[in-house]
Amino acid sequence: MIIEEETEDYMKITAPTLLLDKQKCLQNIAVMAKKAKQNGVRLRPHFKTHQSAQVGEWFKDTGVEAITVSSLRMAKYFADQGWTDILVAFPTNLLEIDLINELAGRIKLHLLVVNTETLEVLQQQLQFPVNVWLKVDAGYRRTGVLPHDHTTIDNLLNNIEASNSLMFSGFLVHDGHTYKQTDTKAIQTIHSTTVYLLQMLRERYFVRFPGLQLSIGDTPSCSVVENLSGVDEIRPGNFVFYDLTQQRIGSCSFDDIAVCMACPVVAKHPERHELIIYGGSVHFSKDVLPQEDGSVCFGNVVELNGKGWSAPLEGIKLVSLSQEHGIVKANPEQFAKYEIGDLMYILPVHSCLTSDLMKGYLTLEGEWLEHLSGVPQYALAR
Amino acid sequence: MIIEEETEDYMKITAPTLLLDKQKCLQNIAVMAKKAKQNGVRLRPHFKTHQSAQVGEWFKDTGVEAITVSSLRMAKYFADQGWTDILVAFPTNLLEIDLINELAGRIKLHLLVVNTETLEVLQQQLQFPVNVWLKVDAGYRRTGVLPHDHTTIDNLLNNIEASNSLMFSGFLVHDGHTYKQTDTKAIQTIHSTTVYLLQMLRERYFVRFPGLQLSIGDTPSCSVVENLSGVDEIRPGNFVFYDLTQQRIGSCSFDDIAVCMACPVVAKHPERHELIIYGGSVHFSKDVLPQEDGSVCFGNVVELNGKGWSAPLEGIKLVSLSQEHGIVKANPEQFAKYEIGDLMYILPVHSCLTSDLMKGYLTLEGEWLEHLSGVPQYALAR
Repeated sequence: MIIEEETEDYMKITAPTLLLDKQKCLQNIAVMAKKAKQNGVRLRPHFKTHQSAQVGEWFKDTGVEAITVSSLRMAKYFADQGWTDILVAFPTNLLEIDLINELAGRIKLHLLVVNTETLEVLQQQLQFPVNVWLKVDAGYRRTGVLPHDHTTIDNLLNNIEASNSLMFSGFLVHDGHTYKQTDTKAIQTIHSTTVYLLQMLRERYFVRFPGLQLSIGDTPSCSVVENLSGVDEIRPGNFVFYDLTQQRIGSCSFDDIAVCMACPVVAKHPERHELIIYGGSVHFSKDVLPQEDGSVCFGNVVELNGKGWSAPLEGIKLVSLSQEHGIVKANPEQFAKYEIGDLMYILPVHSCLTSDLMKGYLTLEGEWLEHLSGVPQYALAR
Repeated sequence: MIIEEETEDYMKITAPTLLLDKQKCLQNIAVMAKKAKQNGVRLRPHFKTHQSAQVGEWFKDTGVEAITVSSLRMAKYFADQGWTDILVAFPTNLLEIDLINELAGRIKLHLLVVNTETLEVLQQQLQFPVNVWLKVDAGYRRTGVLPHDHTTIDNLLNNIEASNSLMFSGFLVHDGHTYKQTDTKAIQTIHSTTVYLLQMLRERYFVRFPGLQLSIGDTPSCSVVENLSGVDEIRPGNFVFYDLTQQRIGSCSFDDIAVCMACPVVAKHPERHELIIYGGSVHFSKDVLPQEDGSVCFGNVVELNGKGWSAPLEGIKLVSLSQEHGIVKANPEQFAKYEIGDLMYILPVHSCLTSDLMKGYLTLEGEWLEHLSGVPQYALAR
């Protein structure tokens, strides 16, 4: 009763733990690498989802040489792991100029720029050349230059051209609004519009910058759209693990989801068929999947089998989270299967945030993999 | 432009950082300690909000000797800091029986129980005596025994009485539904109903267990209700820092909020008066404060002054979060105040989750304080 029969003894899980199915993860990597190759585009995977030295190595094994990260701290972590071509897909944080210079001195560092003010400060303070991408907003409206705003783009490019330490790489888009779609045709429309906009930009500026490249990347587009040609590189990230959000969008099947939470059952409420698990918002994150009936879902329950885990079980799901508690609502049949002291296995809604909170992974083979968030501060100090 | 003038040089903030106003924090602690004393109840503060060895010491200075935590791992952390009377206010996780025994052997450990199955396993596997509280559900409906369910309560108490390692401490309630109220009268009604229910339980069982105690604790009740008598101890936690959620509830004023995020401004969008900050859901958490006009708020912007920070500024707030990006919407006047490379200061919606994500604090005096989530794994290994 205390240790689930299906849990291998070497795992000895006693508290919330993020399991990683390495085979599924390798398969997700292989599928995307093959798709990139067939489309003649470079796969520059976004490592913000896994943030793990070891998972990074699995990408290296498929021939990936260039990566994307979302912070300079993450760039430093992967530079320390031997990666030499790193794009920080986040508007350049000028306050970290020392870290920028440290990295620019030893790797091929790519920065993202939205405003001319940023270029002016970089030009003054850079000690080594860096590659600069202009972030273009093709519809997401988070950040980026609007593609028809030629005045701003011209200003930015004039600044870059006038600088001796800024090398223009090209135009970069992140279509985050694909995450709001559940219709693959909508995702295809977003994608093809973005490629069209980027190609217009290339046409406008290629005489001045013959080597300029086009970079796109979001997991829904890269998963759903078959024809990814027309750009130079793709930067999907979440696909390495996928999650319930991506399944809802249509980017993956349940079977592609490569991470799963293991949570102890700590209390039972037979009168309302609810189970309390040790696993809350500090483990899963508060990201939620709204259901058609107006209820919410924080995770789908699966069962472990000899090879990994099952598809989501019917009649049981994670319906509420507080700091350390989760409430799992079940039908009578599912409720009866769980005893206090069992482990319950739950697919996460958003694998990026769950991984960041869990700070490490346990593979089904019993190996611990690190995550940047779990790396001690002293290891990051320069 | 790169470093805000008002930021003291010794702080050297370059990335999202959680600032702690020690004076406000000490004041929050002092007010609650005084209130507990005046009401003749023991203050057993919940340490899950701060999870910091140093903040714990500030409580010790006011005479606090007994504490509450939300996991056995947190109990171990504070036991290692010299705390000897620790209540784990979470249904006992049987999978951590080794840790329970390790702690029970060296501190006065209090566990929470909801089901008889838990008591049976504890009775079999405990190597040292522990104190047991019955968790009573007075209306929150997360977990606990319903107060009128005498059959279940009798069964639980029979099990405890028959055991030689389980000592009955009393009945414990957490009225988490006070967090959903914005009317102080509603909070007072919830509180007085709970005290009434607990006193009925004491009346029913005090002959059998003359020393049984009553424990309640949620920050809204403990902040809003003046008369906290009628129970033996209170266990509020969030009050140590407070946050925008507690201000909305009416537990505190903006001026009582003792933590504040410092986030670099990384991009500007003059056409829509939006500023992009380095500070996203991996820093703030996704907890949100719905606004009357149907919009959402992930944080209120303040300004630093010589003594700490101002009240929330009008016309500027954090309206959207993705993994590392935050979008701040401003009116033209506020928008014009910020340059790329400035720091922006933002009060968090939920200080417990923000602290857990930030993994440490920087006081206004420039001292770094630790948080359990930032403590390296090796330091927690037994």
